[in-house]
Amino acid sequence: MAEFKTLEIRQSVFQHNDREAALLRAELKEKKVFLLNLMSSPGSGKTTTLARTIGALKEQLRIGVMEADIDSDVDARTISALGVRAIQLHTGGMCHLDAGMTRQGLQGLGLDGLDLAILENVGNLVCPAEFDTGAVKNAAILSVPEGHDKPLKYPLMFQVCDVVLVNKIDVAPYFDFDLEKCREYVHLRNPRAKVIPICAKTGEGMDEWYTWLQGEVRAWQA
Amino acid sequence: MAEFKTLEIRQSVFQHNDREAALLRAELKEKKVFLLNLMSSPGSGKTTTLARTIGALKEQLRIGVMEADIDSDVDARTISALGVRAIQLHTGGMCHLDAGMTRQGLQGLGLDGLDLAILENVGNLVCPAEFDTGAVKNAAILSVPEGHDKPLKYPLMFQVCDVVLVNKIDVAPYFDFDLEKCREYVHLRNPRAKVIPICAKTGEGMDEWYTWLQGEVRAWQA
Repeated sequence: MAEFKTLEIRQSVFQHNDREAALLRAELKEKKVFLLNLMSSPGSGKTTTLARTIGALKEQLRIGVMEADIDSDVDARTISALGVRAIQLHTGGMCHLDAGMTRQGLQGLGLDGLDLAILENVGNLVCPAEFDTGAVKNAAILSVPEGHDKPLKYPLMFQVCDVVLVNKIDVAPYFDFDLEKCREYVHLRNPRAKVIPICAKTGEGMDEWYTWLQGEVRAWQA
Repeated sequence: MAEFKTLEIRQSVFQHNDREAALLRAELKEKKVFLLNLMSSPGSGKTTTLARTIGALKEQLRIGVMEADIDSDVDARTISALGVRAIQLHTGGMCHLDAGMTRQGLQGLGLDGLDLAILENVGNLVCPAEFDTGAVKNAAILSVPEGHDKPLKYPLMFQVCDVVLVNKIDVAPYFDFDLEKCREYVHLRNPRAKVIPICAKTGEGMDEWYTWLQGEVRAWQA
């Protein structure tokens, strides 16, 4: 079985998270490592999306993954088995990661030889949106069973996101989910957000996401 | 259209939430009003479950509902249209409700003539579990598309819950969801928690939930 570390991260001591985040981003720029912050509700498919993304891109990009969870090692185990560098971050009950906590995670993961570091944030549509982690881009997953009204109810998450993956479109026939309304509500919060319908389980729609992600990583490294 | 108020609730000034919660519970006991705290991830079906519960029980119990949301009035509108007393609570970005905030909500709703007050908490499996709202019982909804591993990843929520409604069982054939594992994981966190599989959309399994809820309300009022 693949190996991974588990790191108990401590609450940050920094008062000025935005400043810490900007500092971290500058260091990542210098090291040419792109950091993606992936957020969603519990069970929207973050780990499944990551697993398929790694399978598709691991020959082109050197990828490392930080799996943040309050408890459990389930996700780091899954990711580690795919043959990429992974670390499990335990937040000890904390509902989000800030820049200081992300820095602890990156130190545990190690940035050497990476093009793309991915933070799978704690499953939560509220708190993670409030803290700049130092990531270059923020992605959110909204899954079809959650309903198309979520950008109305959790405005900040959709405001801070550069891309919204609408996952589990394979089950759309069994739910009252209106993709056009979802797109409209996302754009109400953030007109520049890219909305990509996907099914992480079957791979449907994932090519557009891979293209976006690769393009962003290459632009950051240029 | 039915009328409802919207209340912007303020962050509590109380340092000792547990004490405030116990105080609120004692007042509710005196007034013979049962307060249920309903929690879940975004999109698990809290409002749909509530709507059907109200339809089934509003002749037997006098019900009032507090809809907590960061923003939007969607849910209070839905509940109010069912002909029960409803109030929309805006948390102004806060990710949970504590006892002081719940008290503000109950004051806005009004307790007179109620048997059952229901707080639909902010959609979040993390933070709401950390704060005793003063409720007599806590209920959580976990929906099938979220996966049966959630009690492993969000331990506190399942630890503090008296009942777990496993919703959207109508779509179980389309997801890798193992009800027995779910039950096992819930009981790992809380051996006394009642697990009830339901479909709030079709009504399947809801009778067991109604029986539990009515029994709890009557026991509280006795």
